[in-house]
Amino acid sequence: MTLPSTPPPFAISLSEVQQAHERIRAHIVRTPLLESQTLNHLLGGRIIVKAECLQHAGAFKFRGACNRLLQLSPAQRQAGVVAFSSGNHALATSAVARKLGIPATIIMPSDAPKAKIEGSRANGATVILYDRQNDDREAIGAEIATRTGAVMVPPYDDPHIMAGQGTVGLEIIEQATERGVALDAVIAASSGGGLVAGVATAVKSLSPKTAVYAGEPAGFDELARSLASGQPESNAPGARSICDALQVVRPGKLTFPVNLHLLAGSLVVTDDDVRQAMKAAYQHLKLVVEPGGAVPLAALLAGKLDAADKTIVVILSGGNVDTSVFIEALNR
Amino acid sequence: MTLPSTPPPFAISLSEVQQAHERIRAHIVRTPLLESQTLNHLLGGRIIVKAECLQHAGAFKFRGACNRLLQLSPAQRQAGVVAFSSGNHALATSAVARKLGIPATIIMPSDAPKAKIEGSRANGATVILYDRQNDDREAIGAEIATRTGAVMVPPYDDPHIMAGQGTVGLEIIEQATERGVALDAVIAASSGGGLVAGVATAVKSLSPKTAVYAGEPAGFDELARSLASGQPESNAPGARSICDALQVVRPGKLTFPVNLHLLAGSLVVTDDDVRQAMKAAYQHLKLVVEPGGAVPLAALLAGKLDAADKTIVVILSGGNVDTSVFIEALNR
Repeated sequence: MTLPSTPPPFAISLSEVQQAHERIRAHIVRTPLLESQTLNHLLGGRIIVKAECLQHAGAFKFRGACNRLLQLSPAQRQAGVVAFSSGNHALATSAVARKLGIPATIIMPSDAPKAKIEGSRANGATVILYDRQNDDREAIGAEIATRTGAVMVPPYDDPHIMAGQGTVGLEIIEQATERGVALDAVIAASSGGGLVAGVATAVKSLSPKTAVYAGEPAGFDELARSLASGQPESNAPGARSICDALQVVRPGKLTFPVNLHLLAGSLVVTDDDVRQAMKAAYQHLKLVVEPGGAVPLAALLAGKLDAADKTIVVILSGGNVDTSVFIEALNR
Repeated sequence: MTLPSTPPPFAISLSEVQQAHERIRAHIVRTPLLESQTLNHLLGGRIIVKAECLQHAGAFKFRGACNRLLQLSPAQRQAGVVAFSSGNHALATSAVARKLGIPATIIMPSDAPKAKIEGSRANGATVILYDRQNDDREAIGAEIATRTGAVMVPPYDDPHIMAGQGTVGLEIIEQATERGVALDAVIAASSGGGLVAGVATAVKSLSPKTAVYAGEPAGFDELARSLASGQPESNAPGARSICDALQVVRPGKLTFPVNLHLLAGSLVVTDDDVRQAMKAAYQHLKLVVEPGGAVPLAALLAGKLDAADKTIVVILSGGNVDTSVFIEALNR
């Protein structure tokens, strides 16, 4: 596949990510870069973890929601926000909304992890559950937005959300520069692709030699196949994965062109690879990572990308996991 | 009890802690301060966590060992080091020794957590196990030191170790100042008392109005009773606690005078309080914390210190836990 020599106008550029960072900086956790000598020995390279599971509301999603909600007008703030999400975007939107005093309605699949449903309610949001196989979550959201005047906060296909998530990449380059470390690669999990598109926008602008990879679970590897074919491919219906946070049907409309232009590829892992990575993060990094958040580390541990003699940042993007799933990983 | 108006000459002062920080700064993790809105709501105050479980080798002990080993002469480095420890000091000493290319022998109780024994071996140390009830670990260590010329690295009763652990307190004040936060209290777990003595030395010098508390498990609450009586008290033999890292017989010789002079008290918690705190750290902070490391948070959750309208730093001092113990806490 030949890329066009002049890239199309993308939804975001570095400057939007930088503006987002200025806007949200005081509200977010500048999550640390962490490292385990044991993991380094095991993989033969230098593995640096961006511990985004330590972000407010337990995932990177707080950044995008924060960037979006901080730009609402006073009238919009009063009308409130509505979001649909399998979990982390729900937790993030409700947490930001509570912080800013904005009413929030969250539309979640009824099989979302209990921790995420209960957490969104604990954040004061009105939670509406739908049936993932039969209901149309977007129609439910649109109906609420029309009826109440609430602003829809999409999980990824929105320039403000993408720019907010991209601040993870901006911080990675800042923090690596502070340590004098040059990065060979950065890996971020992908569902709708907002995180990896935002991260790639920041990283490829500031450190062009650093390769940026997506990571996906088997069965929901639409991005890997779309990058290979050069056009948006869909997942087969009925696929199952332990990664509740990474289940979309097809790549995002705004995120895919960015990812097609900037990514070096997408690394696909199995449920068992993911459990192995969750256990490794628990054991060697003392971090609680959810299945979707563990995919980049899983890709390295499963040998999907050779880490030997390389310096690689893996983004552990979330930590909101049901306890039974976590224990299953520890007992692996 | 009336304190002498002129304090006795203590083993360390602020300047030793500051020198230790300069010495070890490039080798350690400047562990982050983290916060959970859910915990804050629950306790009615502002609870800030110093996540020392994210330190190299999974506990604050790395700081003291690093400060000690960096001051060895070339001849001493070649002869190696010997340490006795129930676990975290073993992991830390072996990790620092590996980093600096120094041979290490570690003497551990045979009932120490497997994670700690295996971790020390993985760090390249020679591990010697002893029977906690029958053998004299100090005699074993002295014999090795005499025979090989190795330098003994004590777990707490050593000015360099105390100063190294005190850097946790120095960073807490630095990081709180960066955020413009005034601290009402700091809580650190205590066994031999090196961490809390070092932390109190830094905190009381730089922020005299901040109260510093120890935290201890029931059955091993020698410091609480010693602070009350004004003299070193021993624990009854045969006591049991889930907190494998916090089991000494009596307060340290060098640490106790410091703690008697500087601490506001010691908060005593039960095993079940500790499990509750481990689960809360997992759920709300996404951190893996071992029993001993969870004691300060346990003290707040169990109401041993009223957090209402206060800003309190709890040091989560370690994360090296056997998986069965961790799962037991999650299933609480």
